[in-house]
Amino acid sequence: MTNTSAADVPFSQAETRPWADLQAQQLHELRRQLAYLQAHSPFYQRKLGAARIGADDVRSLDDLRAIPFTTKQELRDSLKAAPLLGEHQAAEWADVVQVQASSGTTGSPAYIGLTRQDCENWAEMTARGLYASGIRRGDRVLHGFSMSKGFVGGIPIWQGIERIGAVDIPIGADGGVDRLLIAARDARPRCIVGTPNFLLYLATVARDLAGCAATDLGVQRLIVGGEPGGGIPAIREGLQSHWGATCCEVMGGTDLGCVYWAEAPDQRGMYFVAPEFILAELIDPASGEPIPWKEGATGELVYSSLQRQASPVLRFRSGDHVTVTAMGGPGGRTTPAIRCFGRTDDMLIVRGVNLFPSAVQDVVSSMKPLVGGVMRVLADFEGHTTQQNLKLLVERAPGAAPHNDAATAAQVETRVRNALAVKAEVTMVRHGFFDAPGAQKVALTLRKAPDLTR
Amino acid sequence: MTNTSAADVPFSQAETRPWADLQAQQLHELRRQLAYLQAHSPFYQRKLGAARIGADDVRSLDDLRAIPFTTKQELRDSLKAAPLLGEHQAAEWADVVQVQASSGTTGSPAYIGLTRQDCENWAEMTARGLYASGIRRGDRVLHGFSMSKGFVGGIPIWQGIERIGAVDIPIGADGGVDRLLIAARDARPRCIVGTPNFLLYLATVARDLAGCAATDLGVQRLIVGGEPGGGIPAIREGLQSHWGATCCEVMGGTDLGCVYWAEAPDQRGMYFVAPEFILAELIDPASGEPIPWKEGATGELVYSSLQRQASPVLRFRSGDHVTVTAMGGPGGRTTPAIRCFGRTDDMLIVRGVNLFPSAVQDVVSSMKPLVGGVMRVLADFEGHTTQQNLKLLVERAPGAAPHNDAATAAQVETRVRNALAVKAEVTMVRHGFFDAPGAQKVALTLRKAPDLTR
Repeated sequence: MTNTSAADVPFSQAETRPWADLQAQQLHELRRQLAYLQAHSPFYQRKLGAARIGADDVRSLDDLRAIPFTTKQELRDSLKAAPLLGEHQAAEWADVVQVQASSGTTGSPAYIGLTRQDCENWAEMTARGLYASGIRRGDRVLHGFSMSKGFVGGIPIWQGIERIGAVDIPIGADGGVDRLLIAARDARPRCIVGTPNFLLYLATVARDLAGCAATDLGVQRLIVGGEPGGGIPAIREGLQSHWGATCCEVMGGTDLGCVYWAEAPDQRGMYFVAPEFILAELIDPASGEPIPWKEGATGELVYSSLQRQASPVLRFRSGDHVTVTAMGGPGGRTTPAIRCFGRTDDMLIVRGVNLFPSAVQDVVSSMKPLVGGVMRVLADFEGHTTQQNLKLLVERAPGAAPHNDAATAAQVETRVRNALAVKAEVTMVRHGFFDAPGAQKVALTLRKAPDLTR
Repeated sequence: MTNTSAADVPFSQAETRPWADLQAQQLHELRRQLAYLQAHSPFYQRKLGAARIGADDVRSLDDLRAIPFTTKQELRDSLKAAPLLGEHQAAEWADVVQVQASSGTTGSPAYIGLTRQDCENWAEMTARGLYASGIRRGDRVLHGFSMSKGFVGGIPIWQGIERIGAVDIPIGADGGVDRLLIAARDARPRCIVGTPNFLLYLATVARDLAGCAATDLGVQRLIVGGEPGGGIPAIREGLQSHWGATCCEVMGGTDLGCVYWAEAPDQRGMYFVAPEFILAELIDPASGEPIPWKEGATGELVYSSLQRQASPVLRFRSGDHVTVTAMGGPGGRTTPAIRCFGRTDDMLIVRGVNLFPSAVQDVVSSMKPLVGGVMRVLADFEGHTTQQNLKLLVERAPGAAPHNDAATAAQVETRVRNALAVKAEVTMVRHGFFDAPGAQKVALTLRKAPDLTR
């Protein structure tokens, strides 16, 4: 007998094993992965050699800290030196069966490879995550992430849905808003997956394009990821009220897998679902020192693949800044849960204050209906640090008159200062000024001022 | 010992069985499918009941002609009456594991469902087709069809490539020309799949976007389908010279599978690769009477699914008009090969002459460099029949001066009259006037005159 409802039971027993057991398994897998890298990856042979550390030197998970970090720049250099999969490729091409790509920063996308076993492990992780968020066998799932460009929101999400035994309706964000809404009307999916801003936008145009309100489409679960938003309370509440559905956030990335953190309907944060495939550390982003997992702890996530064959990474600095929201949870879960509040790439230091655009978005979204809810940070300076005030472009409420701009802007500035301890300079722009969200992630930061007369 | 090179051997022995054996198997499968439909499909229960015919009445493949055709309009009505999969759905939703969509004509897309076994059969057919066209285990294949909208060019093509043991680079036409060319440069794929006009366009912008000519990218096979073009000699030759690769055409459709006709590098036409999954008949499109399979025969293709569980069709009028180009071929192939010269939906009757826009395209393309090679038929009348002359918009050659338009137009008119027995009225438009091909099929017919001043 158990006092857990069937709905709470995780997809895999791995998610409920005692934490100490999981750590023992992680150590075992880590040592095996290190030996594998020493044998197969030129990149890690070099890196481990320079640090004079090998599989035999790692006797506890604490010993991991002696291994140098892998940075995004190192991976970019590695990919550039040896296209397609980089010098960290550790499986023969003959064994690679799948290739995915990440958006990359500028120029070339970053590619990763998967062997047959890597694919199996990815599908397992993704299925656990999507299951935690509420997708069940037999469900029809409308695919609202981009299907193309090699993004993990495409084929790997499809594979996770298939692993659960649910049915993907593979329209994709790139299939267009009209077609997605028509498919929602025709297929009446129980679940939709997609980026939060795009799904919010879909709801606002549902009546025009599908002939009924989003709340009438019968959707019960919105599973969102790929950009901040699912973790921003005002956006989550907007999603839930527009769709009449529960919103759960998932997180992953191309380097380690597709989905490996996923929120359950308890909405306490995203649980780690891949303990035997990925070792996740929390570190102080400034010192690089490890931070113990416990509720309330804050730090940057660092990942090591534990069973990866084609494109392994070791102590990879993800740039994701998170807060631990729970240790274990319903259904016997033993793994930590987190909320991601920003990424290193997005972080600005405004007059000495660390600031994530997602935090600003949260403040502005919560001020609806005084404003439209959409904003952009205008970071018209080199790098991430400025001594200027924070420049914000904020969308007017629908139908709001420009002569109220000064008063509205002043209110936004006050709220931002109170919430984030930053002085903002707000410029109001017309409702609908910013492009509607689509197949691309929403960039909350602009590097150049847009043409405000357009 | 065999005098066939290993490269010619088909993917499956089913493609080389004696035709009589295949027909015996088809009869067996057909009777089983009919019994299945009588038991499970309300749509076909009604249709077979009205025709007073059942599985027991079909004792030879000739008896098939007693079964009424299924038209596209019937399927549209069926889908409308019972979304998502229509009244012809014959498997329980619990057994449906995959859904795909076709572009439909206007309004709602047409959805089809697949059970686990249907998926297996689709992957097998698609693998046979892509293998015939030259994709081999270990090949890297750049995915240039659309990945989204539920189209069979997305996930089902991926599944066929996976079945061969080749690696799909899942960028997709909707991933954008830049990204496709950068992936081609980085991944150096041996094969590319996509629509012919789009792959031709990709080649023309390769130098600008990937920094080298398409011929320098090392591609050996172009596998094209989804629209006419691969079968149009001028376009095929353009593709082959621009890429320095062999072009093979494939054909299929959402209703029966993904790919079930595929050209081998002998380039004699597309061989049928799915004899135990699909029964293909040739009929006279006017009388509906069967036409025997033999080289040189011409008719419309009619399909019956033989093993389909979720979305079966029986004597489905495809609207594809084909010529039989071979009966059997290299590597012991026993099945017919065809070339598709047009679709019922596209056919125009111009002053009593049947005319497919693809034939006009062939004439105009072959006149390069006098013209740019792109053209559109302007069918600014109701329906498909007109007593007017054929109106054509023809793109000028790059850099051609407008004052030569009259002379060029006259030459095109002469060539069209000689080749197609139709009097044309040609309007020249600037080079690049028509949109570059992208994720959508190229429509060779316009229903309204475009703004020629744009």
